[in-house]
Amino acid sequence: MTLPALAVSRRTRRTPFSPRVEELGVAGYTVYNHMLLATSFRGVEEDYHHLKSHVQIWDVGCERQVELKGPDAARLAQLMTVRDLSNTQIGQGLYAPLVDVDGGMVNDPVIQKLEEDRFWLSVADSDVWLWARGLAYGLGLDVEVSEPDVWPLAIQGPKADALMAAAFGDAVSGIRFFGFQPVAFKGHDFIIARSGWSKQGGFEIYVDRADLALDLWDFLWDAGRPFNVGPGCPNLIERIEGGLLSYGNDMTSENNPLECGLDRYCHVHGSFESLGREAVARIHDEGVKRKVRGLRIDGGPLKPCVEPWVVHDGSNAIGQVTSAAWSPDFACNVAFVMLNHGFWMPGQSVRVETLDGERGGIVSELPFPRPESAQAYA
Amino acid sequence: MTLPALAVSRRTRRTPFSPRVEELGVAGYTVYNHMLLATSFRGVEEDYHHLKSHVQIWDVGCERQVELKGPDAARLAQLMTVRDLSNTQIGQGLYAPLVDVDGGMVNDPVIQKLEEDRFWLSVADSDVWLWARGLAYGLGLDVEVSEPDVWPLAIQGPKADALMAAAFGDAVSGIRFFGFQPVAFKGHDFIIARSGWSKQGGFEIYVDRADLALDLWDFLWDAGRPFNVGPGCPNLIERIEGGLLSYGNDMTSENNPLECGLDRYCHVHGSFESLGREAVARIHDEGVKRKVRGLRIDGGPLKPCVEPWVVHDGSNAIGQVTSAAWSPDFACNVAFVMLNHGFWMPGQSVRVETLDGERGGIVSELPFPRPESAQAYA
Repeated sequence: MTLPALAVSRRTRRTPFSPRVEELGVAGYTVYNHMLLATSFRGVEEDYHHLKSHVQIWDVGCERQVELKGPDAARLAQLMTVRDLSNTQIGQGLYAPLVDVDGGMVNDPVIQKLEEDRFWLSVADSDVWLWARGLAYGLGLDVEVSEPDVWPLAIQGPKADALMAAAFGDAVSGIRFFGFQPVAFKGHDFIIARSGWSKQGGFEIYVDRADLALDLWDFLWDAGRPFNVGPGCPNLIERIEGGLLSYGNDMTSENNPLECGLDRYCHVHGSFESLGREAVARIHDEGVKRKVRGLRIDGGPLKPCVEPWVVHDGSNAIGQVTSAAWSPDFACNVAFVMLNHGFWMPGQSVRVETLDGERGGIVSELPFPRPESAQAYA
Repeated sequence: MTLPALAVSRRTRRTPFSPRVEELGVAGYTVYNHMLLATSFRGVEEDYHHLKSHVQIWDVGCERQVELKGPDAARLAQLMTVRDLSNTQIGQGLYAPLVDVDGGMVNDPVIQKLEEDRFWLSVADSDVWLWARGLAYGLGLDVEVSEPDVWPLAIQGPKADALMAAAFGDAVSGIRFFGFQPVAFKGHDFIIARSGWSKQGGFEIYVDRADLALDLWDFLWDAGRPFNVGPGCPNLIERIEGGLLSYGNDMTSENNPLECGLDRYCHVHGSFESLGREAVARIHDEGVKRKVRGLRIDGGPLKPCVEPWVVHDGSNAIGQVTSAAWSPDFACNVAFVMLNHGFWMPGQSVRVETLDGERGGIVSELPFPRPESAQAYA
């Protein structure tokens, strides 16, 4: 399928890594946080196979940091999320849904606690800095909200540990999942976290020196040669298989975190001060009206899901598909679907209005079971 | 020049007009407020000639409305801007810079006063709804902030009045600049304003019925046939010639409205309650350190300005170019440049580090004088 063309301007910001991304043959871009993000290099399917077998370097500079700094930084961070941050340690990152007073999702960042009074929110695609600034001003909080010049670089894939060990020795192997620590490169300490937007394992390097960005990329690339390193980016197929929802695609401000399956990050009955906790607690107690699920869609590959596809039960609309892709490993189309109460049980049969006509589908738990067990639904 | 490809997903939202935009051969897109916006159809130059001679229909659905509604709506609108809104009438729109406490620009919408307690902010590319909600919550204001389903459709060009008269008769000819009024189509009242993001004149229709969107497009298209109607979109060349700055391109949160030449929209010494007024008043009294200007750049057409180009005086950096395009009517490259104090006088010679090497340039006032008088600087 031919993709439309993207006209780039200063507003759709480049990153310090853009020259390498282009030299390595980026085949598609999207715009994320007003910044360029690659969507494929050798094709989404070939990238997917490579990501699941080897190791990739990803320019995720678009994963902007919103910094909260000052005496009220911890209070503001807690106000913004329904996840209890009270026991967070310095050097720890937590995935945390940001929730508005009405329970609607504003974003779903990883919150990094850098110091007692300094946090980074690694945000998905919405202007969280404006939200944080509005709250800080309105509430008279003593906190500075900024978007520092930090461009994350991700190393993802089963050979990510091997690449990083070759590059940095033992310095990174001890980093636990979502933990982070400084690692020196060319005399500068870069924060490195064990994290990343795939289920293949890996790291994210918070690159806060544009002048060292290409040197770092080249250093990692050289270290990765024995491991068949390739260029990459968040992969549509792999993220659906792995159950990684995307803010703006699979959840929006119209959704609450409970219907997005983020229950374990919602401490609704805690005693901490959070904007959205009361609304989410009420939704929790009343029971959600819809839930996100996996969906295996019958038939061959489908045109991209560029706007939600209506899902029905033969007569009534019961939900919508928000992302879909052909999975070579599952040998079927995999999708995310938001389904009304009464239709979200795994095994449920539904009909989907795709761009290639109506198709049948079977509801699945998330993340999708491995292909072997998934056969049970076939 | 080959543009990179854009991978579209639900997150980069389509508009109700997208089918017509695609049928009419959109040649380039950008993403604006998380939504698709065309950047050219028959090529930026051919679109430009057509826009300046005839009339175009533009899908500017990405120009999202942020609605403020409730007893504190007027207070919140005024807090967000440094333009005095106290004498605004119902049915009036005002271009109004939104400014943060530190004087940095947050957006530059047209604020429409729909009712005493109901406003629409037609926003540029930043999540103003998050900013407004954060302020409203923090300050405990009694106001509802939403992003209603409204997708503006613009009719632009010297024959826009003729098209609209053919379509709606006398109903629209009396609308004054930036005024708006309801006009019926298929039994629904659409708000129509005399406005739009070109200097060729025209209207914007605030389409709040997705089910009527394509009917309305087709109705306008038919009415425009005698006037050589064409598909169009904000045009890079025309907007630079006309001095229309773009938020995210030519001004960001790093800029205050005074250095962006928006002095006449900054009532810095008023007595109204505004977040940014004090900071902007201080900047005004101290004098700005840099100013936006036009720049005529020597030589032939240049590669696009995808990130700021350094401007220097032969030895020191003195500013940056943020947008540039070849102007057929001026027979030179026209650009926006932010220049340090001492270098912003029209007629000043500078050097620019373009992607095609160093070029000379001559500073111009904005909007650019018509080509005849512009010769005075040559």
